[in-house]
Amino acid sequence: MEYLNKNICALATPQGQGAIAVIRLSGEDTPEIVGKIFVPAGGKAPLPYKMQFGAIKDGERLIDECLVVTFKGPHSYTGENSAEIYCHGSQYIVQEIIKLLLANGVKMAEPGEFSKRAFLNGKLDLAQAEAVADLISSETEAAHKIAMQQMKGGFSAELKQMREDLLNLVSLMELELDFSEEEVEFADRKQLAELLGKVSSKVTQLIESFTLGNVIKNGVPVAIVGATNTGKSTLLNTLVGEERAIVSNIHGTTRDVIEDTMNLGGITFRFIDTAGIRETKETIEIIGIERTYQKLKSATVVILVLDASRPENFKHSLVNLTDKISSRQQLIIVLNKIDETSEVGVEAQIDKIKDICVEHSLSPIAVVPISAKKGENIDDLQEVLVSSQNSWKSSVATGGTLVSNIRHYQALMDAQIALDRVEDGLNSGLATDLVAQDIREALYHLGSIVGEINTEEILGNIFGRFCIGK
Amino acid sequence: MEYLNKNICALATPQGQGAIAVIRLSGEDTPEIVGKIFVPAGGKAPLPYKMQFGAIKDGERLIDECLVVTFKGPHSYTGENSAEIYCHGSQYIVQEIIKLLLANGVKMAEPGEFSKRAFLNGKLDLAQAEAVADLISSETEAAHKIAMQQMKGGFSAELKQMREDLLNLVSLMELELDFSEEEVEFADRKQLAELLGKVSSKVTQLIESFTLGNVIKNGVPVAIVGATNTGKSTLLNTLVGEERAIVSNIHGTTRDVIEDTMNLGGITFRFIDTAGIRETKETIEIIGIERTYQKLKSATVVILVLDASRPENFKHSLVNLTDKISSRQQLIIVLNKIDETSEVGVEAQIDKIKDICVEHSLSPIAVVPISAKKGENIDDLQEVLVSSQNSWKSSVATGGTLVSNIRHYQALMDAQIALDRVEDGLNSGLATDLVAQDIREALYHLGSIVGEINTEEILGNIFGRFCIGK
Repeated sequence: MEYLNKNICALATPQGQGAIAVIRLSGEDTPEIVGKIFVPAGGKAPLPYKMQFGAIKDGERLIDECLVVTFKGPHSYTGENSAEIYCHGSQYIVQEIIKLLLANGVKMAEPGEFSKRAFLNGKLDLAQAEAVADLISSETEAAHKIAMQQMKGGFSAELKQMREDLLNLVSLMELELDFSEEEVEFADRKQLAELLGKVSSKVTQLIESFTLGNVIKNGVPVAIVGATNTGKSTLLNTLVGEERAIVSNIHGTTRDVIEDTMNLGGITFRFIDTAGIRETKETIEIIGIERTYQKLKSATVVILVLDASRPENFKHSLVNLTDKISSRQQLIIVLNKIDETSEVGVEAQIDKIKDICVEHSLSPIAVVPISAKKGENIDDLQEVLVSSQNSWKSSVATGGTLVSNIRHYQALMDAQIALDRVEDGLNSGLATDLVAQDIREALYHLGSIVGEINTEEILGNIFGRFCIGK
Repeated sequence: MEYLNKNICALATPQGQGAIAVIRLSGEDTPEIVGKIFVPAGGKAPLPYKMQFGAIKDGERLIDECLVVTFKGPHSYTGENSAEIYCHGSQYIVQEIIKLLLANGVKMAEPGEFSKRAFLNGKLDLAQAEAVADLISSETEAAHKIAMQQMKGGFSAELKQMREDLLNLVSLMELELDFSEEEVEFADRKQLAELLGKVSSKVTQLIESFTLGNVIKNGVPVAIVGATNTGKSTLLNTLVGEERAIVSNIHGTTRDVIEDTMNLGGITFRFIDTAGIRETKETIEIIGIERTYQKLKSATVVILVLDASRPENFKHSLVNLTDKISSRQQLIIVLNKIDETSEVGVEAQIDKIKDICVEHSLSPIAVVPISAKKGENIDDLQEVLVSSQNSWKSSVATGGTLVSNIRHYQALMDAQIALDRVEDGLNSGLATDLVAQDIREALYHLGSIVGEINTEEILGNIFGRFCIGK
């Protein structure tokens, strides 16, 4: 692989000032390159895996005093000779050390190139490498757990088992094919169907896990809808406000648009922007809600905000929602502005809302009276949000594989289509070689997840999303 | 020192996502703490200074797979047992590891606490520790060089020599004091004066180096002044625009107000904001310039912008400047908007400007015709700026100590005042014990620079400005 002949380097820690910055190096010539720029304090060349204090020098010019460790391939992250330089976290120093490395023939690493090399050198499969990126961007315990399990090879092991079963299936069928002229049916069709059923149901299970895996990785999408002036924005600010600092560093690595997110009880809630409600004459409410419905479709949880000071609008808002919300979605009704009505009034209003719901077949998981402005009962609403996600929290706890990567999801979907054709073929007595062809297609799709089958295009697409230095 | 009984930890790399994050640990119990949370891959406890791969675990829960190295006191940065954890650069993982350390009784390090411990354990003197912070924030070759020389102990060695000379002086005088009843003048007054003169001139030299040291550390202050609508803002944007990306990460660690800075030829130029010129009737120009004069005082270089399309204002602008600019300051006159006048016109205008300057005793180092809007001749102006600073570039190259820290500067000023009193005392035949008292005061001030004399207040003040994890 000509590609791997280059020696590469990159800053592996975030940009900015800090106590320490880490510069990574990988490639065959790493020991010689380190020898050229690093003068160990004791005078002795650094032993692999040993932390060595010394000076980074450009000829006589001292750039920094720092720690250096070298790794000897294949016992390194990339599987190649490599090194890490722990220098002072000064942008100037980092820049000078990287300039010095470039002057010594080292190339800047592309994003994800260290992990790509680890993959090409057989240190990680593709699903594991992708899990590294997920691990770095994970923000909650659940997302961390999925990524960690995938990185440790849990998902890869399941895929391996499925591929083995399919290979078994295809070899049984090819055996039949070899002797087809003798018109003997070697493979027990029932055994074949069982084997196929096992793989097929596993694929289905993994596909189904994606809904949850995706929610964990990207957050539970929550749409806050309601007529204008019901206090939706105030509610969003009150909900997210206190928690906002936690998520302020998140940027577009996993999603393109930054929305307001909040971590509650180990779950990320992602509030879908329902602004953009225009105030036009008379049709204010309808237009506003119509616009929001566009966004509503992608939500797992829908919060409908009603204004306690305008009970005459309850029915209209609720009825409007009936044909826009699906049975998959969870509805929470928030009765806002309870500070503007009496306590008795609030209870009567809740009853009225519940009656309208029954009448129009809406099944809210809760009706929560709050005052967004005064921050009253916000904790009740947060509790309802967290408990709405309880069902999947237990799935995560049991530790089954959850697919969270859209590329894996698509490959599984493709595999399922092929497996459906295999099943049809077996049932309809299709020619064995045609059925075997479909099995090979399913194998191809499953293999593409771990990178048994890969193209430069796929690799570029995957590793290009990594951060530099990983 | 009870203070050092605690075990401390901190994130040592900048906040944010990256390939690697480094968590630092220091304190007597570091090996035991690492033993509790880290399971080495080979099963063996990590040897000091050896990079060990393994898992950070909270009981059975896997937090991350990472590299760990331990250092055995006193052979570590802090001089104590310490460790560094190189984990995946995920904010969630960093947070979980730090939570795990806290649960094991480790305390969060205060800013600069690692360096403070290094100082308290005698690994660095105070001037060296301060140089570490300067090193991290250095943005140019010159700033880096000053900080590096100081960190390596160059300045400390000079201070040590001065203190030895003064101690020698005071002991000679105390010898005289012991025998004072016998009225013998043991100390040769001439010898004393020579010794004093040597120290005194060194202190003066260091004080004088501060102007340059400060400029290197914080940038050359440049004020862009001129009447409204001469194109000052356009000039600033044109000058800084291209270079801005380089400085975009700089924040308020070394200065409180962010101004526009630009690195040119290894020198940081810091443009002083001269906005705020209000447009009031008739007195526009005067008020604008008056306001700017406030800021002008702190500038090393003053750029006066004249509008080539309004030559009738040249004299007024130039004359206005005469009593506001000092002979220490370098004046560059920029003739802007040359695209709005003919080439012949430009030459005539330059002559006119030069004549006015001669007439009013202004000595600009250059008159540069430009068009800020079209970016014409901007490189000429940049060249003039760089060459205006040539004189000190050679001082840096010779490698003499440059004082760049205001605390050191103040201590040197205080020492100089005491030494002046010593000189007066010696000349006027003041009682020896009174003179010795002044020498001790000078010793005190010089000693405070390296931390021979320190108080908790001074230490808190110094280390509190460090970044966390250093």
